[in-house]
Amino acid sequence: MTIASREPQNTGVNSSEANTCRVKPDRIRAAILTVSDKGSRGERGDQSGPALAEALTGRGVEVVATALVADEQPLIAGALCKWADAHAADLILTTGGTGLSPRDVTPEATMQVLDRVVPGFSEAMRASSLARTPFAMLSRAVCGVRRRTLILNLPGSPAGAIENLEAVWPAVPHAIRKLQGDMEDCVPPQK
Amino acid sequence: MTIASREPQNTGVNSSEANTCRVKPDRIRAAILTVSDKGSRGERGDQSGPALAEALTGRGVEVVATALVADEQPLIAGALCKWADAHAADLILTTGGTGLSPRDVTPEATMQVLDRVVPGFSEAMRASSLARTPFAMLSRAVCGVRRRTLILNLPGSPAGAIENLEAVWPAVPHAIRKLQGDMEDCVPPQK
Amino acid sequence: MTIASREPQNTGVNSSEANTCRVKPDRIRAAILTVSDKGSRGERGDQSGPALAEALTGRGVEVVATALVADEQPLIAGALCKWADAHAADLILTTGGTGLSPRDVTPEATMQVLDRVVPGFSEAMRASSLARTPFAMLSRAVCGVRRRTLILNLPGSPAGAIENLEAVWPAVPHAIRKLQGDMEDCVPPQK
Repeated sequence: MTIASREPQNTGVNSSEANTCRVKPDRIRAAILTVSDKGSRGERGDQSGPALAEALTGRGVEVVATALVADEQPLIAGALCKWADAHAADLILTTGGTGLSPRDVTPEATMQVLDRVVPGFSEAMRASSLARTPFAMLSRAVCGVRRRTLILNLPGSPAGAIENLEAVWPAVPHAIRKLQGDMEDCVPPQK
Repeated sequence: MTIASREPQNTGVNSSEANTCRVKPDRIRAAILTVSDKGSRGERGDQSGPALAEALTGRGVEVVATALVADEQPLIAGALCKWADAHAADLILTTGGTGLSPRDVTPEATMQVLDRVVPGFSEAMRASSLARTPFAMLSRAVCGVRRRTLILNLPGSPAGAIENLEAVWPAVPHAIRKLQGDMEDCVPPQK
Repeated sequence: MTIASREPQNTGVNSSEANTCRVKPDRIRAAILTVSDKGSRGERGDQSGPALAEALTGRGVEVVATALVADEQPLIAGALCKWADAHAADLILTTGGTGLSPRDVTPEATMQVLDRVVPGFSEAMRASSLARTPFAMLSRAVCGVRRRTLILNLPGSPAGAIENLEAVWPAVPHAIRKLQGDMEDCVPPQK
C-alpha cells in the first residue's frame, strides 16, 4: 500500500527547486501515533499505523518513531509534545479518535498542544472524503503546528487514513519547509 | 415539503444493518428551536419551524418539542441546555440568527453550550449552499454535540433551512448513534 | 488589474434592489493593510496593496486608507482596531502573513480583534484557490467582523490576493449591508 504520486507538477516556467520551495522527501522525518483503546489493550492489531508507515516510506519519508496509546487525552497530548518539543520529527501523523464516539478525544488533545491551527488541511481532507462518503462530515480532525513540527490528525481506519494523507500530501513538504523558517519566495505549483 | 431521499445506499458487499451502523429513523427524537425577534413579537408567523418539523416527520423522526425565542443569546443557550441536559432529544435543529446582522447570535449561543464542535457539518452545509448562492458564505452556522445530543444550526429562511438539513442528513443518524456510545465498527456507505 | 465581474446575477423574479439587498459599490469605504517585514524595511516594494486598491477602485469602492506594517502582531492588531473602532472603513483587506512561516501572525492578530468570525469567507477562498494549487491549504486566513467593519485576510502575493478577493466578492457588499444593521429580508441571488 503506497500513496499514489500526486506531487504537484511544475508547468515549466519556474521549475528549479529553489523557486518551488520543495523539500526533498528524504529529509522529512515522521512519527506515527496510533490512538486506539482496543489496540492498547491488545484486543486488536494496529493496521493503520503500519499502513501509514509504508505509505510514507514509499514517498522517501523516514519514519523515526511509532507509538500506540489509548483514547486518553493526556496520553495523546503527551506523545505529541514529547516528539514536537524535542523536534524528533518534522511531521506527526495520528490515526484514530477523530469521530463522535464518547471516547474520541484526539482533536481535543491536538488542539491543546498546537501553537497554530491550519484549518485548510482539515477542510481539504473532509472535502476529499465527502466525494466518497457522507460520513466524512463526522471527522473532527485537527491539523496545525507545534514549534517546528506539523501535526495531522487522520481517521482510524487504514483506508481512511491513507486517503486523507493522499488528499493533503501535495502541500505537506512545502508546509514543513515553511514552518522551519525557509524565507524564500516561491512559485506554487499550478494544477 | 419533505426532504428528498438522500439516505446513503450500500453497494451490496456490507449491507447488513450492523455493518453500516444505521439508526432506524423512527428512533430519533428531535426538537426544533426557532430564533426570531419578529416571530417572538408576533409580527411574523414561524414558517421555518413547521417546515423543518414536516421534513423530519417525513423521514420518520419524532418531533418531541418546538419553541420560539427572540435573538437573545441567553434564551437560545437556555433552550439548548434544557433539551440536551435532560436528553429530551437526540437532535436539536435551530433555525435563524446565523447571519451577520447585529442581532444574529445563534452561533455564539451554540458555541457556548457545545462540548465538542463538528465543523464538517457546517462546512458541508456552506459548500452545498454555495453552489446555489454566494450569500452561503455568510452563514456562521455551528454544529456539534452537547452530552448525547447533536445540535445543528440552520438558516432562518424555510428554503435555506430545508436545503441545509438535506445537505447533512445522510450523516445525521450515524452521528447520533456514534455519540450515544455505539462502539461497533462500521463500513461507511460509498458514493 | 481589475476584478472580473462576478456580481451575482438575478434570475428575474426578484430583481429589485430592495429584494436583493445590494449595497451600491460606491458606498463602500475600504482600507488596505499590507503586512510585510521586507516591505516595512524598504527591501521590497508593496505590490499587493496597490493591486488590491486598483481592484477595489475598479468596482466603485472608495479606498480611504492604506498602511504597511511589519509582521508584528501588535502592529497588525493596532491598525485593524484603529480603522474599525473609528468606523473609518466598512471593509478592511489585509495582504500578507497568512502562511506557515514563523513570522506569519496575521491570522492571530485578526482573531485577537474580531467580535465575530465568518468562517465561510475563508473556506470559500481556500476552496477556490485549491482548484489552482494544493498550496492553498496552507492559507490560515481569517475573516470576520469587528463592530461594523468586515475584515478579510488575503495572501501576500498580488495574484493570490486578487484571486481570493474575487472568490468572495459576490457576498461582500451584502455582508457589509447586513452587519451595519439592514434588517430587510432579501432574496439571495441564485447561480
